[in-house]
Amino acid sequence: MSTNPEKLEAIVSLAKRRGFIFPGSDIYGGLAGTWDYGPLGTELSHNIKELWWKHFVTEREDMYGISTATIMSEAVWRASGHLSGFTDPMVECSKCHHRFRADHLDDTKKCPDCGGELGEEKNFNLLFPVPMGSVEGNTSTAYLRGEIAQGMFVNFKNVLDTMRPKLPFGLAQIGKAYRNEIAPRDFLFRVREFDLMELEYFIRENSWEEHFEMWRKEMWRFIDRVGIDRESVHELEVGDGDRAHYSKRTIDFEFDYPFGRKELYGLAYRTDYDLKKHIEGSGVDLMYAEEGEERFVPHVIEPSCGHGRTMLAVLCSAYAEDEMNGEKRVYLKLSKEIAPVLCAVSPLLKNKPELVMKAREVYAMLKKEFGRVVFDDNGNVGKRYRRQDEIGTPFCIVVDFETLEGQGVTVRMRDTGEQERVDVENLNTYLKNKTY
Amino acid sequence: MSTNPEKLEAIVSLAKRRGFIFPGSDIYGGLAGTWDYGPLGTELSHNIKELWWKHFVTEREDMYGISTATIMSEAVWRASGHLSGFTDPMVECSKCHHRFRADHLDDTKKCPDCGGELGEEKNFNLLFPVPMGSVEGNTSTAYLRGEIAQGMFVNFKNVLDTMRPKLPFGLAQIGKAYRNEIAPRDFLFRVREFDLMELEYFIRENSWEEHFEMWRKEMWRFIDRVGIDRESVHELEVGDGDRAHYSKRTIDFEFDYPFGRKELYGLAYRTDYDLKKHIEGSGVDLMYAEEGEERFVPHVIEPSCGHGRTMLAVLCSAYAEDEMNGEKRVYLKLSKEIAPVLCAVSPLLKNKPELVMKAREVYAMLKKEFGRVVFDDNGNVGKRYRRQDEIGTPFCIVVDFETLEGQGVTVRMRDTGEQERVDVENLNTYLKNKTY
Repeated sequence: MSTNPEKLEAIVSLAKRRGFIFPGSDIYGGLAGTWDYGPLGTELSHNIKELWWKHFVTEREDMYGISTATIMSEAVWRASGHLSGFTDPMVECSKCHHRFRADHLDDTKKCPDCGGELGEEKNFNLLFPVPMGSVEGNTSTAYLRGEIAQGMFVNFKNVLDTMRPKLPFGLAQIGKAYRNEIAPRDFLFRVREFDLMELEYFIRENSWEEHFEMWRKEMWRFIDRVGIDRESVHELEVGDGDRAHYSKRTIDFEFDYPFGRKELYGLAYRTDYDLKKHIEGSGVDLMYAEEGEERFVPHVIEPSCGHGRTMLAVLCSAYAEDEMNGEKRVYLKLSKEIAPVLCAVSPLLKNKPELVMKAREVYAMLKKEFGRVVFDDNGNVGKRYRRQDEIGTPFCIVVDFETLEGQGVTVRMRDTGEQERVDVENLNTYLKNKTY
Repeated sequence: MSTNPEKLEAIVSLAKRRGFIFPGSDIYGGLAGTWDYGPLGTELSHNIKELWWKHFVTEREDMYGISTATIMSEAVWRASGHLSGFTDPMVECSKCHHRFRADHLDDTKKCPDCGGELGEEKNFNLLFPVPMGSVEGNTSTAYLRGEIAQGMFVNFKNVLDTMRPKLPFGLAQIGKAYRNEIAPRDFLFRVREFDLMELEYFIRENSWEEHFEMWRKEMWRFIDRVGIDRESVHELEVGDGDRAHYSKRTIDFEFDYPFGRKELYGLAYRTDYDLKKHIEGSGVDLMYAEEGEERFVPHVIEPSCGHGRTMLAVLCSAYAEDEMNGEKRVYLKLSKEIAPVLCAVSPLLKNKPELVMKAREVYAMLKKEFGRVVFDDNGNVGKRYRRQDEIGTPFCIVVDFETLEGQGVTVRMRDTGEQERVDVENLNTYLKNKTY
């Protein structure tokens, strides 16, 4: 596919201008690889997490949610193999000393910044060390987690002991991970601090292919549900040499970002690698058996979804431009389940107290029911529509003089601009049932 | 008040046994000051956060939620004063080299562990440094945030520019903070990684007393709403010498934990200290004015709630023992809004397929509506009740032979053990409306 830097620029600019996403530590010039979510980004982010949790945890009976500390002890990362193996290949320019991901360069001889000669490739570990404790000379180094999966493996026994689940079952988690990326770039795509939405599904070895297929389908179902354009998603069967050391089969779900086709989600068969490593590392028995069965180490299927990459793919899928009433407009086709604002309520004219009062009343009713409702009486109605279109608000409700005569309000649809008149007492049900 | 170590022990033990809270990095002996939430703890934690957000953000019109990176640049912490001032007084034993919080010792001469002589008091900085970037000798040190408030101050201008709010308004955030505590202790009370639920409310200086009072009332309303026993909460007016350097007035809301009366929440008038510091530090204009007004730096009221401390105070308030049917029982009086499980559905007998089938049907209906619903057919009904009591499930629903004859199900109330018969088609409404 071809890249589309203008589209990325338009999305980044909209995200900043409308309060979705700002650079981290912004007033100090930003901190590379970190991003702050503004009011609308926080709501969108929250709604995506809730939808993921509903889809992968609440709506199922075989899932257990957990939420583990982001700092974990060195022993965890030694056992998991991350201390030695969680590295990216790095090269440094001998002249300007800039550093690059060796595997991202077309030419590994000359520096892309200054043309200087590049040094030898080295392995650079991505884990951030954290000096824990106050005893000088005796500080134990812990690490910010580079992936959230280890939180699930380390708690496998705790969940077995307390919840007594039967195989197959999964542990699910949403939470931060941290990687000291050599070169953060491409907006939310390659960052140093990010949320993951992930599950480890524990199975018997002989059923791995069946469960792998089941989760593959579930991931596609989620892709549709969250509003990522499925035409832009492509499965990549990761070859023998390219898979992570623990994986026997991996499918990457790649997305056509404006900067190219790159990873969005991953589905990996991790075998019994991790639990075995933690049995070795900790000496704790992490085996499983049902009555009369011999104890064994369960195998694992891992569907993994980056939260920031989901945000980005959702924004790329939702971003649209068209012409309406002879004017160019920009709008976000967000589904009503994740849109930061479900509906905006306005009086037709802001200088008519009777309209304003009625509009406030409708607003209060809807806000109580849905939360994600705003009151907007700035500018004229046309401007309000454009402003709401740009942040993806599915419905704009206007209280006009007919409303005062009991003729209902107008509900205007974002994508088509079409309007319907709806009775005030039916609005709650209407907004709940209307597909968008 | 007197302390009650047995009660703390009972709560810690229940929390571990039933899948609420485990030590972090548990199978490796734990990592001091970190905790992992199991399936029930994750749900309880989530429900508390949602309730806080609803109370302080969604139900109001003057609040803007944000969610900022946990790693912030050094410049932020230099400007805020944390690099130099975010310290605890520490003393070290000259003999065993254990370190202690000087202000937590009754006697600062002799070591409480070995009786050795304690050295001089030093200031120990609580910020965790994070080496960002890959360039050796040129790594910039960033810091894990020691408080989440700076995320709000640094984004003050971004929110002004994008959302155009009018004073008074607030920025709200829920998220992780990190402190390298000298001596983590008392379960969730003093930890190194924790969530905060906090808001910065921007006002005109002359209205600070009025807004301080408003937030004081709102915090009490939240204390009641989340289910913290208000008789165990005490306001402490923090004296001139004891307030943080930025505060002109602070009230601590202290709670009677089993280990003593200590801080739960804080309400601080931070004046214009932070914004002014960031204007100095960044050179960016963080002032505000309405039309025709001279630009000024807003003042700030900060209601701050620790999330782990809320969990702990909620558990302490909910923990109860009594006798029922001649047996001792333990139960958690959690409100139905935050209980990890809203209701459990069981067949009276698990070996009667017609009961099991009907119970599964009722379960499926309720799970679809409420999510937090479990199916429980282990042991006899009495045992199921006790198990659900212990995790705070407000309602236990049993499908019996009368159900098959259209006589409804029994709904048993956790606190009293009383039962009511409710028609299946009325269950959704019943559970929604029943106060608990």
